[in-house]
Amino acid sequence: MMKKKFLIIGGDLRQLACARCLQKKGYDVVLYGFYDLYLSGLFGGRNLTEDLIRSDYVLLPLPVTQDGKNIHTPLWDQTISLEKISDVLREETAVFGGMIRDERLLQRKRVFDYAKHEEFLIKNAQITAEGAFNIVFSETPFSVFGSKILITGYGRIGKILAKLSMALGAETYVAARSIGDLSWIELSGATPVRYDKLGDLLPHMQIIFNTVPSPIFQKSRIEKIHPDCLFVDLASVPGGIDWESAKEFGLKTIWALALPGKIAPYSSGKIIADTVINLLNKE
Amino acid sequence: MMKKKFLIIGGDLRQLACARCLQKKGYDVVLYGFYDLYLSGLFGGRNLTEDLIRSDYVLLPLPVTQDGKNIHTPLWDQTISLEKISDVLREETAVFGGMIRDERLLQRKRVFDYAKHEEFLIKNAQITAEGAFNIVFSETPFSVFGSKILITGYGRIGKILAKLSMALGAETYVAARSIGDLSWIELSGATPVRYDKLGDLLPHMQIIFNTVPSPIFQKSRIEKIHPDCLFVDLASVPGGIDWESAKEFGLKTIWALALPGKIAPYSSGKIIADTVINLLNKE
Amino acid sequence: MMKKKFLIIGGDLRQLACARCLQKKGYDVVLYGFYDLYLSGLFGGRNLTEDLIRSDYVLLPLPVTQDGKNIHTPLWDQTISLEKISDVLREETAVFGGMIRDERLLQRKRVFDYAKHEEFLIKNAQITAEGAFNIVFSETPFSVFGSKILITGYGRIGKILAKLSMALGAETYVAARSIGDLSWIELSGATPVRYDKLGDLLPHMQIIFNTVPSPIFQKSRIEKIHPDCLFVDLASVPGGIDWESAKEFGLKTIWALALPGKIAPYSSGKIIADTVINLLNKE
Amino acid sequence: MMKKKFLIIGGDLRQLACARCLQKKGYDVVLYGFYDLYLSGLFGGRNLTEDLIRSDYVLLPLPVTQDGKNIHTPLWDQTISLEKISDVLREETAVFGGMIRDERLLQRKRVFDYAKHEEFLIKNAQITAEGAFNIVFSETPFSVFGSKILITGYGRIGKILAKLSMALGAETYVAARSIGDLSWIELSGATPVRYDKLGDLLPHMQIIFNTVPSPIFQKSRIEKIHPDCLFVDLASVPGGIDWESAKEFGLKTIWALALPGKIAPYSSGKIIADTVINLLNKE
Repeated sequence: MMKKKFLIIGGDLRQLACARCLQKKGYDVVLYGFYDLYLSGLFGGRNLTEDLIRSDYVLLPLPVTQDGKNIHTPLWDQTISLEKISDVLREETAVFGGMIRDERLLQRKRVFDYAKHEEFLIKNAQITAEGAFNIVFSETPFSVFGSKILITGYGRIGKILAKLSMALGAETYVAARSIGDLSWIELSGATPVRYDKLGDLLPHMQIIFNTVPSPIFQKSRIEKIHPDCLFVDLASVPGGIDWESAKEFGLKTIWALALPGKIAPYSSGKIIADTVINLLNKE
Repeated sequence: MMKKKFLIIGGDLRQLACARCLQKKGYDVVLYGFYDLYLSGLFGGRNLTEDLIRSDYVLLPLPVTQDGKNIHTPLWDQTISLEKISDVLREETAVFGGMIRDERLLQRKRVFDYAKHEEFLIKNAQITAEGAFNIVFSETPFSVFGSKILITGYGRIGKILAKLSMALGAETYVAARSIGDLSWIELSGATPVRYDKLGDLLPHMQIIFNTVPSPIFQKSRIEKIHPDCLFVDLASVPGGIDWESAKEFGLKTIWALALPGKIAPYSSGKIIADTVINLLNKE
Repeated sequence: MMKKKFLIIGGDLRQLACARCLQKKGYDVVLYGFYDLYLSGLFGGRNLTEDLIRSDYVLLPLPVTQDGKNIHTPLWDQTISLEKISDVLREETAVFGGMIRDERLLQRKRVFDYAKHEEFLIKNAQITAEGAFNIVFSETPFSVFGSKILITGYGRIGKILAKLSMALGAETYVAARSIGDLSWIELSGATPVRYDKLGDLLPHMQIIFNTVPSPIFQKSRIEKIHPDCLFVDLASVPGGIDWESAKEFGLKTIWALALPGKIAPYSSGKIIADTVINLLNKE
Repeated sequence: MMKKKFLIIGGDLRQLACARCLQKKGYDVVLYGFYDLYLSGLFGGRNLTEDLIRSDYVLLPLPVTQDGKNIHTPLWDQTISLEKISDVLREETAVFGGMIRDERLLQRKRVFDYAKHEEFLIKNAQITAEGAFNIVFSETPFSVFGSKILITGYGRIGKILAKLSMALGAETYVAARSIGDLSWIELSGATPVRYDKLGDLLPHMQIIFNTVPSPIFQKSRIEKIHPDCLFVDLASVPGGIDWESAKEFGLKTIWALALPGKIAPYSSGKIIADTVINLLNKE
């Protein structure tokens, strides 16, 4: 049986790790958009047009593009235009990408945004949580063991942060809205916190992880936070804190975006490969 | 009642944190051997000789001295000679120090090496383990979750590393000698490993934490370790690895000494204060 | 300020525990439907009609009724008819009950089924899981530590069973349908199992907890289960196993219904009180 | 190669499970002291004298004897005298037994008390802890989750009880003497308790597990325990509680001896087999 062909265009160390995983799984993998030095053990293509036509699957990076025109290729100094790819691709080729916003791509018959897939999001949350604790270990002069940690939000990242926080021996508080979440937080061993009671807690916290992408930390809350507290914002744009007030009160604040690609590109690439393969199997 | 007087001479951020803890506990604390800028909220002494005579307790740093002559004062540019201190101190004054080797100090009636105290060693091991995982988070391109971790040695640090390793979701292997330790490792959920079976395991490990302060990682073992593995040596001098062979095989090796003072000086200082107070209570 | 009045009619030890909690919270509590010997420290009513008219809240048992006519009063030998209560109750009185099916009750303005409330369901799931392990401890000749446990379903009870199972040191497998659940199971440290792969696993399991209330264990699966395996069905009616086949193959099967009231009536009663109070606060 | 021959004489379900394990490991196993109905898949001997002479190893039960004269054979109605066995056994035959007190046995060249072996003791402690929670689940009307548990003693059983207690979500207090133990307890997440502070804690505890085999619970402490508290004594003779006072104050007390054989005879038998094999390997 002929091997199925995966064309990987652009991206960072995650795409390279993903390429290695796909290769191991038995796919024929060709890469574009990387300096040769990154390709050890991988196969760099020669003729993009031809490879585009011959490929069964095309994998685009996360994000697919930063400027809206060209594929994101941080490990290469040349450009690959999104338009050209759409021009050449056959209709039946499956395209995978992260955060796809391009209209032509979105209108294709077989197009998958792996970055919106539940499996991807959950497993990335685990890596994000490791990255969050890496920041805390590096940035605080006290140990996590015995410290008081507040987590706002109990979605994917909040759940994993809470678990690790308890595992590391921190006194763990989690703020959430729904009675269901509050009940689960209580059962998990953490202290559930209603948002209307948050103010009383803030002066005592040493670390705050925010995961809620809406401005819940306004001046009235920020001024209650202890000046030695470390605030780590893990929420996507627009984040959860009023930066002006944070600056005014001298609160140490770190907005930690895109941690998985930074802290564990290999595992993150493996997650992309797993997600893509599961999407193919389901299709 | 008059407050008891603690004289703190030299040291780093740990001694400053310790000073703040002792002050909170109701002691009268005076410091020597620090630039003024470090002393906010603390009291810097003016006349060392007088303070030495009037103090109930003297706290020396960890280590007490690096050159054998002067107190270790990394946060000051002047010197304080050990001899002078011994000359002036009254016989009944209690002296606390870390890693005391000075003969005159050791012969005093009331002298305590807090760095050898069980409480200090156990609680520092917790901080050391946090520091070890900080290194791993920073230095490996994969997540700890799902990785394969070997820990050699099941003393204080080994026990805590194993616990955190499992809590973080790593496949955890622990090598130990005694049947008792091997049984406890099994009950903890980790995989116990006998040293004579270590060789078979090494090629599969992604992270190795050594805690055994004797050269158990010789060439014959090092050559079996996977080249992408990270080796973190947490053992005190002489460490546990043959550095020549590690270099020869290109093994990424980090000898992580004195982590508590680096990663969590405040908590480490608090531990010194707790230990000293417990030593006083017991006395 | 006058205390609000809670009338508790019928039920078992849970209602008595609930009564004590409500009393502690500052409510005026009156009970009907219990022998006097159960009422130590509580207040038994004298005139039901009068008390019904004067009460702010009425609490009915779980289930409200077994015969459809009378309140369930397992700790009393007389009957209290549901109809009479509905006749007398003022319109504005709030009624709480568990598994309310009576039409007249359901049509009231302020009626709450605490047994359908998220908080109640989650916290009861914790007690159910304790009861499930109590069964396992009692019924198997091997220890949970080191045993192989399969859990089918990853809802409230499945999640908590999985957590306890791992905490007790069992090799834990969890079968679920959605990719999201399977990802969470993997992150939790258990082994995720797809239902189409269940067959391969069954011969190796020593304990199976089913939480899925549909007949997923048919003959074709039952015949693969090891004869020494203990099957504990925690699913509500109709359960998850084909009893005929289970009998045919001699599979040891326990259908464990209504565990919370049996294993921990006090905690279960406290959960009812908490839920009722939260429902009142929210209203 | 000829199989080595194991002769198993007397005992309960544990010895039968042990026999099956040894058989699987490749030993030739012969049993005496059981009704035939217990021997399915095992081999019952015909001529004890001959088998004694021909065996490489003899395994005696735990305890070896209850009356000091005959082997303990609870699953048989006949007697096998210890003396006879000692008379016939060759000098070079290795004898394994649990709690050996018989002088002639103890003076043999190759005699091993598996019940005193570290591996046996640690692994049995795990089963004992499961049994302890089985008692608690069955005997208390509240859930372990959220309850307040005191454990006295931090040896093998105390350590495992503390771990399970926290895993089950109980507020966990552990009393110990040494500063080392108290530090480990603190790191584990439980609350360390000094014995001189025990009195203040007692009125608030709902479950007490004692593991200390000396009478630490005297009248002055018992009278402080809450009347609804369950006291489970897991200490070997003489136990840790003054029974007269416990009765006087109506404290619900359970002295749980020899739990492993009761709650998990199969696992307990496997532990005997593992221990015996490890003893042989080491020899």
